[in-house]
Order: sequence, then structure tokens, then C-alpha cells
Amino acid sequence: MSSAIYVVNPNSSLRVTQGIDLALSPLRMPGGPRFVSDWLPSGPPGVQSQQDVDGVAMLLVQHCLALPDDCAAVVIACFSDPGLYAVREAMQPRGVPVLGISECAMLTALSMGQRVGVIAILETSIARHMRNYGAMGISSRIAGEAAIGLGVTELADQERTLSRMVEVGQRLVREQGANVLVMGCAGMASYRDALAEASGVPVVEPTQAAAAMALGRARLGW
Amino acid sequence: MSSAIYVVNPNSSLRVTQGIDLALSPLRMPGGPRFVSDWLPSGPPGVQSQQDVDGVAMLLVQHCLALPDDCAAVVIACFSDPGLYAVREAMQPRGVPVLGISECAMLTALSMGQRVGVIAILETSIARHMRNYGAMGISSRIAGEAAIGLGVTELADQERTLSRMVEVGQRLVREQGANVLVMGCAGMASYRDALAEASGVPVVEPTQAAAAMALGRARLGW
Amino acid sequence: MSSAIYVVNPNSSLRVTQGIDLALSPLRMPGGPRFVSDWLPSGPPGVQSQQDVDGVAMLLVQHCLALPDDCAAVVIACFSDPGLYAVREAMQPRGVPVLGISECAMLTALSMGQRVGVIAILETSIARHMRNYGAMGISSRIAGEAAIGLGVTELADQERTLSRMVEVGQRLVREQGANVLVMGCAGMASYRDALAEASGVPVVEPTQAAAAMALGRARLGW
Amino acid sequence: MSSAIYVVNPNSSLRVTQGIDLALSPLRMPGGPRFVSDWLPSGPPGVQSQQDVDGVAMLLVQHCLALPDDCAAVVIACFSDPGLYAVREAMQPRGVPVLGISECAMLTALSMGQRVGVIAILETSIARHMRNYGAMGISSRIAGEAAIGLGVTELADQERTLSRMVEVGQRLVREQGANVLVMGCAGMASYRDALAEASGVPVVEPTQAAAAMALGRARLGW
Amino acid sequence: MSSAIYVVNPNSSLRVTQGIDLALSPLRMPGGPRFVSDWLPSGPPGVQSQQDVDGVAMLLVQHCLALPDDCAAVVIACFSDPGLYAVREAMQPRGVPVLGISECAMLTALSMGQRVGVIAILETSIARHMRNYGAMGISSRIAGEAAIGLGVTELADQERTLSRMVEVGQRLVREQGANVLVMGCAGMASYRDALAEASGVPVVEPTQAAAAMALGRARLGW
Amino acid sequence: MSSAIYVVNPNSSLRVTQGIDLALSPLRMPGGPRFVSDWLPSGPPGVQSQQDVDGVAMLLVQHCLALPDDCAAVVIACFSDPGLYAVREAMQPRGVPVLGISECAMLTALSMGQRVGVIAILETSIARHMRNYGAMGISSRIAGEAAIGLGVTELADQERTLSRMVEVGQRLVREQGANVLVMGCAGMASYRDALAEASGVPVVEPTQAAAAMALGRARLGW
Repeated sequence: MSSAIYVVNPNSSLRVTQGIDLALSPLRMPGGPRFVSDWLPSGPPGVQSQQDVDGVAMLLVQHCLALPDDCAAVVIACFSDPGLYAVREAMQPRGVPVLGISECAMLTALSMGQRVGVIAILETSIARHMRNYGAMGISSRIAGEAAIGLGVTELADQERTLSRMVEVGQRLVREQGANVLVMGCAGMASYRDALAEASGVPVVEPTQAAAAMALGRARLGW
Repeated sequence: MSSAIYVVNPNSSLRVTQGIDLALSPLRMPGGPRFVSDWLPSGPPGVQSQQDVDGVAMLLVQHCLALPDDCAAVVIACFSDPGLYAVREAMQPRGVPVLGISECAMLTALSMGQRVGVIAILETSIARHMRNYGAMGISSRIAGEAAIGLGVTELADQERTLSRMVEVGQRLVREQGANVLVMGCAGMASYRDALAEASGVPVVEPTQAAAAMALGRARLGW
Repeated sequence: MSSAIYVVNPNSSLRVTQGIDLALSPLRMPGGPRFVSDWLPSGPPGVQSQQDVDGVAMLLVQHCLALPDDCAAVVIACFSDPGLYAVREAMQPRGVPVLGISECAMLTALSMGQRVGVIAILETSIARHMRNYGAMGISSRIAGEAAIGLGVTELADQERTLSRMVEVGQRLVREQGANVLVMGCAGMASYRDALAEASGVPVVEPTQAAAAMALGRARLGW
Repeated sequence: MSSAIYVVNPNSSLRVTQGIDLALSPLRMPGGPRFVSDWLPSGPPGVQSQQDVDGVAMLLVQHCLALPDDCAAVVIACFSDPGLYAVREAMQPRGVPVLGISECAMLTALSMGQRVGVIAILETSIARHMRNYGAMGISSRIAGEAAIGLGVTELADQERTLSRMVEVGQRLVREQGANVLVMGCAGMASYRDALAEASGVPVVEPTQAAAAMALGRARLGW
Repeated sequence: MSSAIYVVNPNSSLRVTQGIDLALSPLRMPGGPRFVSDWLPSGPPGVQSQQDVDGVAMLLVQHCLALPDDCAAVVIACFSDPGLYAVREAMQPRGVPVLGISECAMLTALSMGQRVGVIAILETSIARHMRNYGAMGISSRIAGEAAIGLGVTELADQERTLSRMVEVGQRLVREQGANVLVMGCAGMASYRDALAEASGVPVVEPTQAAAAMALGRARLGW
Repeated sequence: MSSAIYVVNPNSSLRVTQGIDLALSPLRMPGGPRFVSDWLPSGPPGVQSQQDVDGVAMLLVQHCLALPDDCAAVVIACFSDPGLYAVREAMQPRGVPVLGISECAMLTALSMGQRVGVIAILETSIARHMRNYGAMGISSRIAGEAAIGLGVTELADQERTLSRMVEVGQRLVREQGANVLVMGCAGMASYRDALAEASGVPVVEPTQAAAAMALGRARLGW
């Protein structure tokens, strides 16, 4: 039975899960592990508040503990990396590596530019993300983070979402010296190329960054 | 009705809750707020693993949301500061400040010595604590952290517990240059004086440090 | 004889000392320690230059050494924390804790927001404050510091002072991402609420932050 | 024509190149890019001194500029990341990502443990590596780095090499608190499992870490 | 034979070498070492790209190894400090100290202001410089770096060059809080005074900063 | 009238002042500025406690304000850099640069090794020095600091002093990875060569490091 990498979206949004699935296609290879776009039916419509983040942590643990034996790696597909360390701890006895898209996106960005700019969805998430960057010990590499400030419903308007991302991304580059950008949200891979073109700097899509690192971990058996 | 500060032990251990209650006595003043030693009957016997930490976060949110109107401040009495930001977010509409004993202990230690040594209970908690120090942006002030390595049952042996704390504390001072020590656990205030005497440096008891800061926040109405 | 906490304003300004005394009222409790607003009659009208700071250090030492036996804690009420370590050293034999309002304000702010903005009075003080934040090892948590740029006489104009503080505070929040503000001066507690309201983020008044921590230290006997 | 990832060993050692080739096998998938173990015939027998590092930089640039059109990514397989930024700059017009094994190994390690210990070959390389970690802004995550102190010829003695690596790795874990280890050299993947078992912490093999990230970059077209 | 300090411009530009020679005059003393303005005839017209930087490293090593016996110290006069560590390593057997103008300029600036602003020539150099500041461990002291964005030919227009430097320098002071400026290029000492006057903060000319430190090292025999 | 550089020892010890004067000889050049070994007759026998440090600050200001017109630069020759910023502020109207030996020694060390070890005289000074390194923003470059633990009288025993310095220095190199050492005290230049030889790494003598930087500043007129 070929091994599989489970990319778990901790919210119950179909749109986001589909966006994630789309993001994974380039990493699907004959002879490689399957990439399964998974999600939490019992999760919130979106993971936005700190209570959303902490609320899904143990749901993710239980969900991942129930993953089939073909599970070779887990990616938690939310930019707040909810429950990352709890799931990692829970899967350790099975030897399954667990990666978070925020952690992997930031690490990947560090190899693509010297000063990282992050485009968040909501202003209220920025302090939480900053705590994560501090915990990672990479604060000195952060040029800045700014939010597009759109709610879940507004995000359905793709044109508006992209134009806000471009606006915020360009400001991070021009005013704060970012030379690489990270999309601070899952499920938006479809905007990556346009954003990179408009901002003139490389752009990291977090789910892809994490899935790629998970692919390596799965193949290497670390 | 006089206001009250709720010091919530997220585990269900009576011993720890009693230790916390004892630690609060010096802060009880006739004209001051009441200090209520609270705990989670539904919590785990001890908060040790990352799953314990994430598992109590939302229990703490629900517990704190149900606290009576006299609640002037909340202290989360576990050195992993479980659910700190979620509870803080949940209590914000009520204007109730929420403090974590790890956060407050480290901040207090920064005003008592230049290099902070932390005495943990379990080796496995150290990486989690280090992430917290990083999120706080104070990693450069940490001399080191080491564990006494005793399980819940062994902690009942007070003599052994103290002697291990002294041993670890002295090593942090002598070998890693700590000039202030933090007890990385709640409910052990009774060991503070002996530990300070034996190590020759000031010692921060986290629940007392947080309760003191909570007292100020409650009185000032911030 | 009940114990007392001496809050020492190192300048000779009556206005500032009165502002400090006002700031302490919420911390006065029937069964708690007395808070004594103290000042240096021989100090400069204001502590503004580096020479003012260094010039009052030993005056503070001598003043504090002469404090009565009921002294349970000392707060140095100037945002440059003049002589903090010398007074701490001098009072150590008596076991009296000594706190600085800058140190305590910054530490308290770290528990109220992720990125700290500081409102200074004079541009020339900012580099000195930055050195203090560096010595504290918290530079990565500083969003920025800016000055209202008013001289001693202009500070008497309360309306103008507040409006300048609001202006500078709002800019720190909007342009530099501060989500907590610190008032970089003693004796201005009366502006705190208006500033917090106008800036939309919590505001730390340094003398109150330090007096609250001193209260804890005094009660706990650390 | 299927795309290929060129893993370039900047020295002329066949042993090292073979070790690298072996390390890549797990990442070879029927439908994935080819992994080509490449090397610099004109390079030094080993890259050990700073002059070796700077001496191969432009050789690597010229070598990589001559890589065939199927080149989808380049990995520079020396733990000093020689010429990394020059090669990156040179390949940018072709849109070919260039990764260094030191950079990628450290980034990968940051997702596997909180404090990173690095096992170097030569004492004289440590300062250079430390400059790289500083340039990466991750110094606060480094537990320590120590050298096994074996010369090129001694490295041929596999038993001795492994036992020295285990010795040094165990000391980094026990005495400096490392909870993940990085092998600070290319071509030693065969020791990884034994080292991980003996040290009790995860071990990052740098060439594999970089090749895995290169695989992702190549497939994603970033 | 009196000793000499060789200040080596790694590019072949006569204009830059003359600018460097002019910068050295104040350090020439009857009884002191000679200052020799040296350059690489085989170097590029200007060191601008990363390939320029890496391309001159070994040329510098060979050039310096051939310096006469009176060589008491070497200064590498390019703000990217090309080959600094390789030349240092190569000259160590002769006991000749080797200094880089970027390193020395930044170190000197740290003693002249709390927050350093750097004026670069080209935007593309900034990330490279930032890596150097990180390797030096001084990132927290950097207020910002900005480029005047003039090409080699445009730099011949002195009036325009100065006015761009003033413009960029004033912005670093006003908007990013720099209280000392560093000229991020060799051969421009003639602009120093005007720039200092216009920006209102001290300005460090890197070649002079390095030559001064080299003078000390040469005299002290370290 | 030729210009002069005043190296001011803030204590009243003749031995230390003589040691300083000896240290300056290599920097004395015909045609160069005079180096004047100055001291504070009214200073304490040694600057050891924090009160000593703060106590001499304003004495140094007054002393330096009275220096003759030929004063081209001032060096404060005590490793705690007492009153450095106050004297700098006081001399600014005269355009006289003021340097501290601790600041300059650490900056110079950063150009001589990647990890700095500091040999202090007294254990109680280390925390103060660490605050200075933090204020300088260079904490990540410090390998460690340790004290020889000898009192003023014991320091008269040169053999014992050197052997203790060697012992402590070797430990900093072997156990804490220092690859450059700084002598954390003025007046001990005579031990430098022996210490360098015994420890196998370069050694920075702080008064010489500062006098050399002062020489440059004086000649350049910055």
C-alpha cells in the first residue's frame, strides 16, 4: 500500500479544502506518496480567533490519531499552526512527522529572501503570528506583517481578495523592505503567481511549502 | 461586593491547589481583593504533556467565562500558561485581565537578576518553555533550564523534591551563570525560602509573581 | 508599625510628585502597606539629560539609605531608572527590593501586548531608553518610541500635552504596529484613560506598574 | 525531457560524491525529477579552509551556468554553502532555485527540535558556520556546535568517524541541551540512523534536507 | 624600514582609489605607518553584484600574499568586505591583521549612535549587507538601510550623488530613527562633512573607520 | 599646540594609572597626538561596586569639562564605562569624542573572533557588564564571562593574577567556545602577550583598543 501525506485543514470550509487540494497537485508524482486533502468536519467555519486555534487543537489530535496506517506525514493546514506540538507529540509513537504550514512557510521564506513580509487576513491574527515567529527565534528576519482585513464572506470575492493582497504586499516591499512575501493563510495558492508578479518578489504559499517539506520527510523516513 | 482574583489551577490535584492557596496568603489584605484558589475538577491530574496543555485550554475558557461578576482578574496557575491567550481573548469583553504564571514569573525574574535559570519538573517540558521565552522575546536573558525529573507521585516526597531543586538550582547558578532562579511549577511556594538560601540567589515563585501582578491590575482597573 | 513603600521622584518638581501621589491611590488598601510619595528636594527640576540621570544616582542612594525602618520597598519614579542598580545594591543589606518604573512598565507591557510603543517626552531621551531596553534584552518587542517634544513649561498645558500624546500614540499604533503603549514619563497617570481610549490599545502608566510590582514584592518579602 | 535536480559537491572527492548519491536515493521517484550527483573535478580534495570556500565559489557559478536545460534546481552540497548567493544570482535569469545544504539543514532542524546542536568535522569551521547562523538570524536556536576533529584521511575510517560523531552528539545533547542534531558535513548519510539511535534525538542529514526542499521548489516552479 | 598599512580597493577604478587615498591623509603621521592606497588592476570596474564580491575574494588573497614585508595591516576597501575571512586566514601566518571597511564602519558606528542607518549605493546590495550585519550579531542596532540607486556612471556626478545621499540619509533619520549614519561605499569621504551637516547626525566613512582601527592594530602588534 | 588624547582612569590607583600609561606607549608617534594618562585623585581606590560606578560619573564629567583646549578625545579607562554617556553629552559642544574601554574592547573583539569571552576581576561585576553588552545589542556574540575573583590587594601579586587570568581564559576557550578574549579591566596590558600565548586565541586589552579608536577619531575630526 503506497504511503500517504495527510494535509489537514482544521476548519470545515469546503472552499479552503478545495484550494488546498489544488495547491497540492504539483507535488503529486507517480511513484510518490499520495497527498490527501483532509479536513475537520467538526471544525469551525474558519480558524480566526485564538479560541478557534486552541479549540481545534485536540480535535486535530484525535483526528490524526485515527488516520490510517498508510499515513507517512501530517501537515496542519492553518497559518496559526494550531495544535502543532500536541499532534507532533501524539504521532511520535507512530514515527509520523507532523508539520505546520506557518512554520514551514517561514522557514522556506528564509531561504528565498533576507527580510520576510507576511500578508495576514485579519489584523487580530498578527500578534499571534508574531509570537510564533518569536518562538521560532526568527523575529530579526521579519520585515513586517500586515492584514488585508477581509472577512470570510469577503474572501469569496476573488478579485477583491487578490487586489488587497497585492496592495498589502507591495507596501511591505516598498515601505518595510521585504524581499520575500509569505501568504499568511491556507487555500490561496491560486493567487500566488499574480501576487509574485505584482510585487516583484518571490512569494511563499504556506501549504505548498509544508507539503513539500513533508514529502521529503516521508521519503527519507525521518 | 468586594472584588476577587481567581487563581485557577488547570489540573485536578488537591495538593497543588492547596500549595497555591498557601502561596497566596501574603497577598491577602483586609481592604484588598479576595484571592480565590480555584481549580478544574475536570482537568487532568497534572498538566505535563503538550496534549495536557492544549487539552485544558478550552476548559479554562469555559471555566473562566462562568466566573462570577466579582471577578477582577484571572491567574492561570500552570507554568505552561495553557490557554493564556484564549482566556485573555474570552475575558476581554468583561474587561478582566488574565495573567499566566510563567509569563509573570519570567518578567518578575528579569527585574531581580540578569541571567535567569529555570527549574523545570520534567525534561520534556523544557522545549515548550523555551518556545514561550522565545515568544516573549527574552531568550537572551535565559541562563538555562534544567529538570528535577520527578514524576507526580515522587513529588509527594517533599524532602527529595527540595533536594533535587537545590541540586539543579545550584548547578544553574554555578555552571550556567544564573543569578536569579524561577521555580518552573505551581504549588511549590513552600520550598522557596530554602531554595533561595541554598542557591544564594533570589528565587521567583511563579504563582505569587502572577498573583501580585494581578493584584495591581485589579486595583488599577487596567 | 505598618510597612511603607517609598516612591521616590528624583526631581524636585511638586507637580510631578503630586501626579505620582495621585497615581498611587488605587493601590492604597486599609490592610496594605502605606504608599509614600517621596522626592529629592536637592534634585533637578526635571531629569532630562544624561547628566541629570547620572547626577541624581548617588543622591538617590543617600536618600534611600536614610529611609526609615518601615521601608518595605523602593520605587524610583523616573523613566530613565536613574541609579536603579546602585540603590538596589545599597538597599540589599536591608533586604529592601528596589524597582524602576521604566523596567516595570516595560515588563508589564510585555504581558499586555506583543509589540510595545513608547511615548517619550524628549527626542534626546529615546537613545537612552533604547539602551535600557537592550540591557533588558527585550529590543525585539519594541515597535518604536517617539517623543511628544514638549519642554517642562509646555507640559503644564494639560490639553496640549494630552493631544500630543494621543497624536504620537496613534502613530505608533497605526504606522509601527504597536498594540500596547507605555507612557515614558512619571506623573502623567491622569492622561492614561483618555490616551487608552483614543489609541484603542492598552496603556501602561509606569509609576503604577512599578508600585504594583513593589506591593507584591513587599507583601511576599522577596 | 524530464527535469533534473543537480546536487553539486564542490570538492573533487569521489567518496563524498558517492556518499551524496547514496543519500539521494530515497528521494528518487519514478514520476519525479532525476537527482544528479554532480561534483567539481577542478575543486579541492575537500572544502575545509575559508580559502577553499571562497576559492570554489566562482567555479561553482561557472559550473552551474553550464548545466543543461533540464536543470530544475541546484543544491550546493557543502556545509559552508560556498558561493550560495553568487550561484543563486547567476541562475536567477533561468529561474532555477539554488539551495545550500547548511541553510536547508538548519531550517529543517528548526522544525524538528527547539535547540539545535551541530556536529562539525573541523574546529576551524565552527566560527564560519556561526557567522552563517547569524546571517540567517537563528543564533538563539543554536545549542552549540562541536567538532569531531578528524582529518580527511581519518574520515575514511568509518568506525572511528561514527564513534566520534556519537561522542560529540551525545555531549551536545547532555551538556548543551540540544534536542535535534545536524550533521555539519556532506556525504555522511550512512551514519544518520546510528547517530540518531545513539543520541536519542532526531538527526538532520544536510544533503537530504536540501535535496528534499529542492524537490519541492522544482515541482512547484517557484 | 617603516611599516605600512595597505588599503586595498578590490576594484580597478582609479576614481575610487583616489577617493580612498584622499580619505587616508588625516591618518598619515610623520612617525606613523605609511598608508598605501592599493587596488586590484585585475578587479572589476566596480564590486556590485554577488558574483563581483565572490569573484574578487581569491584575487585579494593572492594580491595580499604578495604584499611586501613592510605590511603591518591590510584593509579591504569595499563595503561588502569581499574575501575578508579568506585574506585574514591567509595573512595569519605572517601575523598581519586584516580588516574590512564594512565591519569596522558598523563597529565604529555602534560607538557613535544607538540606531544605525546605512546609505547603500544599489538596492541589490542591501540584502547582502543585512546578512553581514546578522553574521556580526548587530541586527538589533540597525535602524534601516536604503539605496541612492545610482549606477557607476551616475556616481561621477558629484552634486547629484551628494543630494541623493542627503535625501536618503535624512529619511533614515526622520522616518526610521537612525541617530548615526554609515556611508555604505568606499571612496566617498569627500561627502562626509556635507552629509553630516545636512542630516544632523554623525556620519561614519567606512574606509577611514577601518584604516583607523588598522592603525591601532599595527601599532599594538595584535 | 599639538592635540592630546586624555585617557582618564576614574580611580585613584597609581598602579592602575601606570599600567594604563604603559599600555599607551605603542600608540605614541612623532607627529601624532599626545596620550595623557589621567586619573581622578578624588576617585575611589578602585571602581568595583555599582555605587563606585555611579559615584564617579559626575566626577568624570566635571573633570573632563576642565580638560585643556588641546583635548582632542577622551577615553574613560574603566571596564564599566562609568559616566560614558554623560561625559559624551558634556563634551559634545566642544566636539570632543568620548570613548569607553569596555565599549571599544568589545567592538574590537568582534573583529577578531566570532565568540567573545570576557575575563572579569570580580564576580559581582559580570551582571553589570552583561547589561552593557545587551545595551550594545551584541549579547549573541558573547561566549561567556568569568571572574578571576581577586581583590585589589591580591591583584598586586602579578604571578597569581596572571595564572588566574590564564586559568579563566583557557576555560572560556575550551568549555564555552570563545575564540577571542577580552581583559575586563584596565591597567593589565602587561599580561596580554602571556595570556594570548597561553590561551591560544587573540586577546583584547581594553585601554589599548579604546585609545586606538580615539586616535582615529581625533585625527579624523569626527
